Amino acid sequence: MNTMGRNFRITTFGESHGAAVGVVVDGCPAGLPLQESDIQPLLDRRKPGTSPLTSTRREEDRIEILSGVFEGRTTGAPVAMMVRNEEKRSQDYDALREIFRPGHADFTYQVKYGIRDHRGGGRSSGRETIGRVAAGALAMKYLSGKGITIAGKIVEVHGRSDPREIEDAILAAKMAGDSVGGIAEIVGRGCPAGLGDPIFGKLDAAIAGAMMGIGAVKGVEIGDGFAVAGRFGSENNDPIRKDGFASNHAGGILGGISSGQDIVVRIAIKPTPTIGKTQHTVDIHGNEREIAIEGRHDPCILPRILPVAEAMLALVLIDALLEQEGYPH
Amino acid sequence: MNTMGRNFRITTFGESHGAAVGVVVDGCPAGLPLQESDIQPLLDRRKPGTSPLTSTRREEDRIEILSGVFEGRTTGAPVAMMVRNEEKRSQDYDALREIFRPGHADFTYQVKYGIRDHRGGGRSSGRETIGRVAAGALAMKYLSGKGITIAGKIVEVHGRSDPREIEDAILAAKMAGDSVGGIAEIVGRGCPAGLGDPIFGKLDAAIAGAMMGIGAVKGVEIGDGFAVAGRFGSENNDPIRKDGFASNHAGGILGGISSGQDIVVRIAIKPTPTIGKTQHTVDIHGNEREIAIEGRHDPCILPRILPVAEAMLALVLIDALLEQEGYPH
Amino acid sequence: MNTMGRNFRITTFGESHGAAVGVVVDGCPAGLPLQESDIQPLLDRRKPGTSPLTSTRREEDRIEILSGVFEGRTTGAPVAMMVRNEEKRSQDYDALREIFRPGHADFTYQVKYGIRDHRGGGRSSGRETIGRVAAGALAMKYLSGKGITIAGKIVEVHGRSDPREIEDAILAAKMAGDSVGGIAEIVGRGCPAGLGDPIFGKLDAAIAGAMMGIGAVKGVEIGDGFAVAGRFGSENNDPIRKDGFASNHAGGILGGISSGQDIVVRIAIKPTPTIGKTQHTVDIHGNEREIAIEGRHDPCILPRILPVAEAMLALVLIDALLEQEGYPH
Amino acid sequence: MNTMGRNFRITTFGESHGAAVGVVVDGCPAGLPLQESDIQPLLDRRKPGTSPLTSTRREEDRIEILSGVFEGRTTGAPVAMMVRNEEKRSQDYDALREIFRPGHADFTYQVKYGIRDHRGGGRSSGRETIGRVAAGALAMKYLSGKGITIAGKIVEVHGRSDPREIEDAILAAKMAGDSVGGIAEIVGRGCPAGLGDPIFGKLDAAIAGAMMGIGAVKGVEIGDGFAVAGRFGSENNDPIRKDGFASNHAGGILGGISSGQDIVVRIAIKPTPTIGKTQHTVDIHGNEREIAIEGRHDPCILPRILPVAEAMLALVLIDALLEQEGYPH
Repeated sequence: MNTMGRNFRITTFGESHGAAVGVVVDGCPAGLPLQESDIQPLLDRRKPGTSPLTSTRREEDRIEILSGVFEGRTTGAPVAMMVRNEEKRSQDYDALREIFRPGHADFTYQVKYGIRDHRGGGRSSGRETIGRVAAGALAMKYLSGKGITIAGKIVEVHGRSDPREIEDAILAAKMAGDSVGGIAEIVGRGCPAGLGDPIFGKLDAAIAGAMMGIGAVKGVEIGDGFAVAGRFGSENNDPIRKDGFASNHAGGILGGISSGQDIVVRIAIKPTPTIGKTQHTVDIHGNEREIAIEGRHDPCILPRILPVAEAMLALVLIDALLEQEGYPH
Repeated sequence: MNTMGRNFRITTFGESHGAAVGVVVDGCPAGLPLQESDIQPLLDRRKPGTSPLTSTRREEDRIEILSGVFEGRTTGAPVAMMVRNEEKRSQDYDALREIFRPGHADFTYQVKYGIRDHRGGGRSSGRETIGRVAAGALAMKYLSGKGITIAGKIVEVHGRSDPREIEDAILAAKMAGDSVGGIAEIVGRGCPAGLGDPIFGKLDAAIAGAMMGIGAVKGVEIGDGFAVAGRFGSENNDPIRKDGFASNHAGGILGGISSGQDIVVRIAIKPTPTIGKTQHTVDIHGNEREIAIEGRHDPCILPRILPVAEAMLALVLIDALLEQEGYPH
Repeated sequence: MNTMGRNFRITTFGESHGAAVGVVVDGCPAGLPLQESDIQPLLDRRKPGTSPLTSTRREEDRIEILSGVFEGRTTGAPVAMMVRNEEKRSQDYDALREIFRPGHADFTYQVKYGIRDHRGGGRSSGRETIGRVAAGALAMKYLSGKGITIAGKIVEVHGRSDPREIEDAILAAKMAGDSVGGIAEIVGRGCPAGLGDPIFGKLDAAIAGAMMGIGAVKGVEIGDGFAVAGRFGSENNDPIRKDGFASNHAGGILGGISSGQDIVVRIAIKPTPTIGKTQHTVDIHGNEREIAIEGRHDPCILPRILPVAEAMLALVLIDALLEQEGYPH
Repeated sequence: MNTMGRNFRITTFGESHGAAVGVVVDGCPAGLPLQESDIQPLLDRRKPGTSPLTSTRREEDRIEILSGVFEGRTTGAPVAMMVRNEEKRSQDYDALREIFRPGHADFTYQVKYGIRDHRGGGRSSGRETIGRVAAGALAMKYLSGKGITIAGKIVEVHGRSDPREIEDAILAAKMAGDSVGGIAEIVGRGCPAGLGDPIFGKLDAAIAGAMMGIGAVKGVEIGDGFAVAGRFGSENNDPIRKDGFASNHAGGILGGISSGQDIVVRIAIKPTPTIGKTQHTVDIHGNEREIAIEGRHDPCILPRILPVAEAMLALVLIDALLEQEGYPH
């Protein structure tokens, strides 16, 4: 299942060290102005090597639009987009060919498929998200024309919320050959009331599924999330006034349908499992092994996950919007 | 979208005060022994009126199997199951015909559909979950034959975790015409490694979507969930030994695929929005109004939500299992 | 897969001799006036026992709407509809419990499921189409509000096209304990241009799949169908004039998308496989057997299949229309 | 809807004169040996320029596998395959920019999308089928390992069935600046009994939908097809013997499920709409126009459609097979 969405359907493909990674977007409305330069800036945000807080790998990641655009506008046909994998130091990964890295998908992929592209995580690599971000950029372009915007921010890393503290925590982890987790918040603004379907098509259910479908995410909250567990109903209900809701504990969704308020989502992101510290594991033959993974890792994935999480929210919102609109013309 | 699942597909129907509520299960393996008495006990667990902690409404909720069973065994044809709505005091709800209850789906349904069955919540009523629980009971019957079991428990209500404290908190809220939220944990045991698909079909993404698709749920965690945000990678990675994983911070899922460990899910449940206390709201004409909802409400929905959450986990797991197995024979 | 449609999704359930047959319609637009009397007349058309040309079985088939309607209008929630199976002379079928009727699905169901409800065809009975016709009636009600109408007719039976000849052919077959096949034509009028999707969502592909999904259908044509095989391009292309197309060889669909002309479909229907004449077959133990099926059979299923085929076309068209419209309000 | 299939899901992309055409195959079983040379020969069969009977355009169409293969075997990840569009004489099509060619999708695309890539048919070009044939080649590789083979042949062109007569008919049409239609037959051999689902997932319904989803197809028959309309039931039923069915009027499918016999499909293919003869039409401004399309056209598309139709049958069969098998390992 490498496809997401019912109306704005994206199918991603590609592995970390294969020929290319990319995405096919099916269901994009016709007539939308589109060129590579609409997509590239969002891809650049998820690149490594842009700050001391991220991996020093260099990835150029030039997007190419392969189809679906005619004289600068989308035609309603599938928009295929691709990035060639340039820097492929596959031999760096030879030591990992037969070993299961703790916290990674190595073991479960091996069990499921009986074969595994071990180079840089293969299909489970973060490079797969290039396709998501490219599709998300396309979605955001359409959404912004409808007055809908999406913005994410880091709210906590390793228990700290002050930006300087956060930077210190990440650099300390890096120094120690370790990694740290955190919490990000993504907000959708300008979303009309009425998006989402009751029962199994709830907008919050779609958001939760989309966010938990990002590699490192272990928790999702809508609105006040887990804090509601400590509340009275009289505190938690959002009173309604003539001019709208008086508060937004619900995070912009009631009964699975958008209320017109900001859509507020928070996600818990685990520390990057790839660390330099020695860990206990086994190889594919069942022998116990120790590994310490050398190389250029992200001590904290949050800065690079933000554009991915924003893309996922954009993809859910455009899908719900097109469900309402049908084929816009 | 009243359908859930790809292989074990359930479609629920019915409103609180319509003729009936029910479910059609499509894709149930053939040859499974099935009769009403396999389903009824799970429905009875979600009934109100069974303890001072829940609503005093009486709902008999006798399940009837309408199709898909021949001489006591499933045939592979759709299993339709139905409960007639017996106690329909629709006139109790006349006062709510034109008013939007805070914290409810009244406003968003009205915006989306332009029409709303206000009686007892209509389609957004908890009675819709009868279909889910009935389908979940069928799923559990199949799963238990594969050695997979599912169990839920309340871990926190209004900030307390001691059972006696919890009971006190609920009764106090009831007395005050208020309600309280909490946290429940659902664990799947005996699940084989290899279930779930990478990328957009991740097992944890399906679980998150399913759980957030339960009316009152505002947050979902897998494994250690939000706690991972405060961790080092070296603490959070589960070491692997010859005889299996040495810990289960991941909650039984790696890269979206089950690892063979217990699958651990926690959900945050908001306080029931229906309360006796006076609240500010508006009616469908835009006039500001005050309401205090008299009647038989649940001061805390957790005891009744447990069988629903268990059913949702069962439905996700059987769907992933049948994806692996194809048509079992 | 007992579900059809993407936007107007119907799920049928039930067997010939189970408790009930029915359908759940998900995605029906809200606000549509609906009562049982909108559905019943179409069901009555597919009933047996109404003319000497059909089986003498009596089926009352009273439809009951179980959900999705509030004060006489649809609410956007699933519309479940059900017919109780009244006349269940299951013992009539005891002789067929272990035998595979030629031309029927008995053998293939047994191979696929390892279990089979032999009573009256079980799930493969024509009674399953009650759910389709009921859902189709609902679809037609919506379509007619958009100016779209659907009408089917018999164009050929056993090689004859004159109505009197057709009646004679059917009665002769009945007398001989045999059955005859034929061809029906279904036309959709008033359909706007632009419905259907290119490539795998073509309107003609959806129609072909829907029609071939009716039990006895062995061939489907759009427009001139197989006759185009003998044509020159210069004969077969429909010239375009200022005021529209000058002919309709294409049957109202170009490139998978409706052109605004009449949508013309023809289907080939095989002779009913249930006949009184002696046939060679085997039983489930592999023994060769002879059967002559006594009882009340249809010597020609065309008169009763017409409302089913009309329903299938209505279901395809409403699905394509809602794809364009989104949620109408 | 540029995606086909439930288990072996293919998504095609690309236009005649865009950067590339291709396909992403999702759900391909892991461990299958695969390289470009497995795919190329089937693509070469659908190329023009290989005989006097087809267009003289030269298309190199070198396939490149972009993902999903590791050390010569599929990994279970999406297999993306692409062909760069080499010969793009887009200016050849300038005369067609504002004109609707009769028998083509020009008019309906314009109505639906309000924009149209007119160069070589754009998305509705036969070049889109490159993706289908590439995916079909992959499917056939898997199927042949299960003993299932697929073969198509031309059975009739412009009313003639003798190969020499057929060649003459095509060359005569070419000379006259015209085109001719015909009938092809595709047979699947070695398919096990039990594939396909009752009701809306019937194997014959899936085949009919797939075949009618090929651009020029206007009719589909299974088994004896339209001929059954002239039969008695006693002639048409296939008797069953100890050693199998005594005939195959049904075309290998009963009740929507494969019987183990050959699966026999016939399709009616219209004359290529692109002809040199003068035709009446209109332009996008509504002015009446005459066109005579110069250039290198196929006077009969049947030879080039055969590999496409074989691919479509392969795609339907592998999808049904994987539905039974689940994830093979």
